[in-house]
Amino acid sequence: MKTMLWEDNQLLLIDQTKLPDEIVYFTCKTYQDVIKAIKTMVVRGAPAIGVSAAFGMVLADLAGEDLEKAASEIKNSRPTAVNLFWAVDRILASPSPRDEALKMYQEDIKTNQMIGKHGSPVIDDGDTILTHCNAGALACVDYGTALGVIRAAFAQGKKINVICDETRPLGQGARLSVWEMQQENIPVKLIVDSAAGYLMQQGKIDKVLIGADRVFKGGVANKIGSLMVALSAKRYGVPFYVAAPLSTFDYDKSIGEIEIEERGPEEVLLYGNCRIAPENTEVLNPAFDIVPDDLISGIITEKGILDPI
Amino acid sequence: MKTMLWEDNQLLLIDQTKLPDEIVYFTCKTYQDVIKAIKTMVVRGAPAIGVSAAFGMVLADLAGEDLEKAASEIKNSRPTAVNLFWAVDRILASPSPRDEALKMYQEDIKTNQMIGKHGSPVIDDGDTILTHCNAGALACVDYGTALGVIRAAFAQGKKINVICDETRPLGQGARLSVWEMQQENIPVKLIVDSAAGYLMQQGKIDKVLIGADRVFKGGVANKIGSLMVALSAKRYGVPFYVAAPLSTFDYDKSIGEIEIEERGPEEVLLYGNCRIAPENTEVLNPAFDIVPDDLISGIITEKGILDPI
Repeated sequence: MKTMLWEDNQLLLIDQTKLPDEIVYFTCKTYQDVIKAIKTMVVRGAPAIGVSAAFGMVLADLAGEDLEKAASEIKNSRPTAVNLFWAVDRILASPSPRDEALKMYQEDIKTNQMIGKHGSPVIDDGDTILTHCNAGALACVDYGTALGVIRAAFAQGKKINVICDETRPLGQGARLSVWEMQQENIPVKLIVDSAAGYLMQQGKIDKVLIGADRVFKGGVANKIGSLMVALSAKRYGVPFYVAAPLSTFDYDKSIGEIEIEERGPEEVLLYGNCRIAPENTEVLNPAFDIVPDDLISGIITEKGILDPI
Repeated sequence: MKTMLWEDNQLLLIDQTKLPDEIVYFTCKTYQDVIKAIKTMVVRGAPAIGVSAAFGMVLADLAGEDLEKAASEIKNSRPTAVNLFWAVDRILASPSPRDEALKMYQEDIKTNQMIGKHGSPVIDDGDTILTHCNAGALACVDYGTALGVIRAAFAQGKKINVICDETRPLGQGARLSVWEMQQENIPVKLIVDSAAGYLMQQGKIDKVLIGADRVFKGGVANKIGSLMVALSAKRYGVPFYVAAPLSTFDYDKSIGEIEIEERGPEEVLLYGNCRIAPENTEVLNPAFDIVPDDLISGIITEKGILDPI
């Protein structure tokens, strides 16, 4: 199953806000549709956002829009994932946007398979692996980064167990990562985000694997809560790996220069249609945090495992 | 507003599973009703559980039940909060159960006020204080432990801001602590549990204050997630205080001897009536974790602030 399809000059995106209850595609006929899909998290995950943005540029090109203007608007849709910027700039620099986007689509799958190949040796037979958010097929065109490593290890016959953090507020762990693992019959259990530390305290987690929205000098920006998982892993001696394509790397930036997206309060106040706090409650809703380098055991890329710098 | 009332030889408990949407009392006419209320978390919070258990014993006594049998059943209702055991044993040792329970009821309020008095000096004017779960009036007969310290500081005219962790799975922070602060016009904001580390990373939290279900040699057992908050506080140099009455202390036990309650999967899989993960998903749902001593700045009791041992 692909997170996105390019058919008849339209971009079809699995609507990830509706998973796992409904599997429906959201159709993008214009680049504005793509922006809407990125902002509302119909599509999410740095690699998937990147390739979607590339096809957004293709839609702008096909419609004869001003590409510089479209590029600027697409880049403004979400500030933290660097793949968005990388993808848009790559299309801008290409004489053939559609061919370039299709190339990026294929590259993304290949890249993730290579991440799986390089990463799977860190998984031992019998490991219980904790993951946060969804760095799976749904965060990419297919296969996934962190979950790609797990897929590769499982395909090699290693007996593994996966623990998924729920990942409040939007539940990408509970809704997406759990579902992806279940689809492939990889043993999986769900916990609330705040139980990750306890499981490590009890010695029940062997490895942590997460994705990244941006890798930069001094750390990695990833879904809110990654930092607290990393601090727990450090305390209890659990290896903590980040799996991310090189397109996520932004070594021009260092810690403190990264804009952390603040999202709206309703994501926190409502779970589905259920209100979880008194009405009009004030909310802080940062979407990402930063895992400093000293908490990271290695960054698994399509070229091999790198030390953080 | 009192968390519980003793009227006409019945124990009335505010049904905390229904707050803040409905303020209704759950009536306990028998000690079995009290056990049901504790198990289903109609009443929760170590001090409130303790006093409720005492009145459960009174109900057993009034009905002419076998008190040893009632004591055993009540103690088995929840394993982690030590106040349950302390309260039941105190009633067993008393010649006049009802008078003893009413004394414990009044003592609880007085104890919390003393915790507030001793703890308020750690709060500085202008502080932003993070709290996890609900160690408020609703966790006690009235006033609260951690939130009692905040109430006392606020009453002294200190300008403070409170940040409440949502506290999945049951949302005691979002539903109860936020509501308590709003009732008293203490400025309060809600975050998801996994955002606490980020706010400390950004220097936006000055103090952490939590309650305790059991204080023992080597650490403190408290609501799941307390450990990850404490690890974040340690990393970013934020003072981390536990507020707890001496009835919560159990220095006969040390780390590793504490039973951590594992609760059912539905608490995690459903938020209100909203399903948050695929049906039949396997869940781990530990209700508490352990904050080791080296992460604790001090334990605020009714006798003063103690160093953890």
